[in-house]
Amino acid sequence: MLTFRPVVLVTGALIAALGFTMLIPMIADLLSADEVHRADWAAFAIGAIISVLVGGGAAAASWGPIDQISTRQGFLLTASSWFALVVFAAIPLTLGGLELSYIDAFFEAMSGLTTTGSTVVTGLDDAPPGALLWRSMLQWFGGVGIIIMAFAVLPALRVGGMQIFKSEAWDTSEKFIANAAQYSLGLSLIYAFMTALCFLLLWAFGMPAWHALNHAMTTVATGGFSTKDASLGAFLTMGRAPLDMVVTVFMIISSLPFGIFLAALVRGNWRRLYTDSQIQFFLAIVTFLTLIMMVHVQSIFDTDLFTAFRLASFNIVSILTGTGYATTDYYAWGPFAVGIFFCIMFIGGCAGSTSCGMKVFRFQVALSALIVYARRLAHPNGVFVARYNHHPLTDDVFVSVLSFFFVYFATFATIAVLLSGMGLDSLTALSAAGSAIANVGPGLGEVIGPTGNFSTLPDAAKLLLAGGMLLGRLELFTILVLFSPAFWRT
Amino acid sequence: MLTFRPVVLVTGALIAALGFTMLIPMIADLLSADEVHRADWAAFAIGAIISVLVGGGAAAASWGPIDQISTRQGFLLTASSWFALVVFAAIPLTLGGLELSYIDAFFEAMSGLTTTGSTVVTGLDDAPPGALLWRSMLQWFGGVGIIIMAFAVLPALRVGGMQIFKSEAWDTSEKFIANAAQYSLGLSLIYAFMTALCFLLLWAFGMPAWHALNHAMTTVATGGFSTKDASLGAFLTMGRAPLDMVVTVFMIISSLPFGIFLAALVRGNWRRLYTDSQIQFFLAIVTFLTLIMMVHVQSIFDTDLFTAFRLASFNIVSILTGTGYATTDYYAWGPFAVGIFFCIMFIGGCAGSTSCGMKVFRFQVALSALIVYARRLAHPNGVFVARYNHHPLTDDVFVSVLSFFFVYFATFATIAVLLSGMGLDSLTALSAAGSAIANVGPGLGEVIGPTGNFSTLPDAAKLLLAGGMLLGRLELFTILVLFSPAFWRT
Repeated sequence: MLTFRPVVLVTGALIAALGFTMLIPMIADLLSADEVHRADWAAFAIGAIISVLVGGGAAAASWGPIDQISTRQGFLLTASSWFALVVFAAIPLTLGGLELSYIDAFFEAMSGLTTTGSTVVTGLDDAPPGALLWRSMLQWFGGVGIIIMAFAVLPALRVGGMQIFKSEAWDTSEKFIANAAQYSLGLSLIYAFMTALCFLLLWAFGMPAWHALNHAMTTVATGGFSTKDASLGAFLTMGRAPLDMVVTVFMIISSLPFGIFLAALVRGNWRRLYTDSQIQFFLAIVTFLTLIMMVHVQSIFDTDLFTAFRLASFNIVSILTGTGYATTDYYAWGPFAVGIFFCIMFIGGCAGSTSCGMKVFRFQVALSALIVYARRLAHPNGVFVARYNHHPLTDDVFVSVLSFFFVYFATFATIAVLLSGMGLDSLTALSAAGSAIANVGPGLGEVIGPTGNFSTLPDAAKLLLAGGMLLGRLELFTILVLFSPAFWRT
Repeated sequence: MLTFRPVVLVTGALIAALGFTMLIPMIADLLSADEVHRADWAAFAIGAIISVLVGGGAAAASWGPIDQISTRQGFLLTASSWFALVVFAAIPLTLGGLELSYIDAFFEAMSGLTTTGSTVVTGLDDAPPGALLWRSMLQWFGGVGIIIMAFAVLPALRVGGMQIFKSEAWDTSEKFIANAAQYSLGLSLIYAFMTALCFLLLWAFGMPAWHALNHAMTTVATGGFSTKDASLGAFLTMGRAPLDMVVTVFMIISSLPFGIFLAALVRGNWRRLYTDSQIQFFLAIVTFLTLIMMVHVQSIFDTDLFTAFRLASFNIVSILTGTGYATTDYYAWGPFAVGIFFCIMFIGGCAGSTSCGMKVFRFQVALSALIVYARRLAHPNGVFVARYNHHPLTDDVFVSVLSFFFVYFATFATIAVLLSGMGLDSLTALSAAGSAIANVGPGLGEVIGPTGNFSTLPDAAKLLLAGGMLLGRLELFTILVLFSPAFWRT
């Protein structure tokens, strides 16, 4: 039997909690020196009241002890809570001074909570502080949300091969909820500490405190929302090398598995930081791509080696991790660079981080599946076992991971074709679809490239892209399984 | 132990046989009224002599009984024979009046034998008849070659899920070679009969006999080489509806599994023709896509319903089956149509036909894998079995098929990025990579689109694309497995 009570209870509580956090941007607006900006506080006050009343009401109506969450309740809870949070997070954005339609506000909130970073807002430079802070906060919440989910929820749901992380997260499955709470608290503390450190460094290297705060939140979340129309580029003049290097370093750190940081801090298991095969593989990819792009940048722009390194590493890491800060229009780097940027956005970082894309471990699993497959082809009677991090992999994991790739590309192609059907040109359609599902942010071309904005797209395209962001962030199957008739059969 | 003798013997014999077939275009040249064209006979004579001597010599040197072909010998034989045939088939093209460099001739021969249909030849209208006939013959050989391979070789090698066709092709595995020969002969006869029928219909509906012969060969092979610069469009004026409809029908028939035709004729099993799930699925795809494109064509060009049907069905079938005849520049049909054309070229027709792409059955297997996977996600303790054509599918088949998709896209992306690195623009690089690996033929854009030609690409790009064609035609793994160290370990 599939009962909805626990789902409604937790979703309601999360909405109410989101409502309380709306008081922070409200205060930011009230503190503003600008009278017009100050008036924006009301949008957050109304949003907070609605969210607390509706969420609290739903939670109260379904109050009661939760002994256990079934697998199906787990899927339903994950999908409904992310969706509901976006619905309510959009309220202050549509009521406030940004004057967004509800669909635009929904797109922006979805882009925030999924840490995508695509925006429909024009005129960030003159936007009220509350709205800017709210956008950064949404990405920050989304970042910590996905880290906790990657440890507490997705392995148990066995989504797209995430079951291989199950044994790591849970030593004893008996005390599930107690363990989950403790684990989540630990991960959140590390996340908060990293954000604080990033803020201090950005501030120390010359970024004004307000902007440093916002960018620290969206960097650690690998989100990419900025407080400036020129994005991070507004602060990154060539003379200020340290600033973009700080951002690069924190994007990399935020793309590593947070559970391994926790294990290092709590159990003193620092060795995992350099022996974990996912971390090794990710850092190897970053190094390899940075070197290639460095050579390419130097060959076309004739810059010095250090500038080439900065440009290459920043942009490679920004796209690879799905952050999507725009500092330069890399479309001008020629088709080779664009081709690489387009491909790597699908890769992403490590599972258990805030980063987006398909995740490095899936490529590792697919590669070992292929190697074993090639051996079996050549020697049909041989016995070969694939391994990940020294643990043997089963056919179950292979099918999960390879299905994930298949559905990922099918979803990407479907969204791209549907966008073309809405009249978008090929480059915009392709890059928008990829950017949404990989939670990157900006697309390619004049319309939605680093110099453009998603505001001019038709509403249907915005809703489709918002759906793509949610699919990408929740690893596809968490949403898609709800459309399977078998899911609803008791 | 991996011994090369049987591999060299069969490859040599095939090269010698190819040499003898070069006498046919030689005769065509000798019969030509044009003196310049007549002089081209020497190119084929030289090609024939070289091929017969080298191939015959290799076969003679390795002569002896072949008891059994091991799996590894099977892979090696498949890869080496296709590659060697291309190497020798290119000789008359480079020596003759087309004045192609050897790399261009190699590209053209590869495009022929793999039934791709991309061309580097300009001025087909004035080309010597021998060269035109040779191009058509290469596609015709490639077509029958892939049909025989899909029944006699690929299921035994278990390439990308082809093992599910194993039991169908071989009732008793003991008499392997005797069965294989009988089977191959039956398939070849059906293929030849269909070509003759196509020729007669094209001729009856007004195409000159010479052109009808060439186009019949490249239609049944779903190849797409033409005898005219304007491709089939040179014959398809709007007033001659039957001509392009004949081609459409034969492209569809040639994309169905030839083994089922054989079973129908030999054993009277006509029921399979409409109960086979691969045929049903393929025809459903054709119908669905034609309807969508019909509506789209009518909405932009305001044509009558029949013209919209002809345009839509012809172009959908031409790209879907990987034939690639160009009649109109569908790039002018807008991004929605281009998006659809780009996606469907990867689908292809049925396994066991001459058609290209990933093949319909793989999508069916992937879909049933996904449905079972979704059920397992929702009900972790349930037992679910996926089926194809009423037979249960194992995890082994899932991993094979899903690996195939993964490697297909990885190969596509790699070729596209490498082409970009050679200075091709994004549209050309993407469409050339897709067109090569899916064995379609023309690409998109000004350079390699229906109005363009592959001759202007750099040599490295031509070789890379030729490699992509071979990979696509031989279902990737037949080639890739040779690069696995395990393959060479005894």
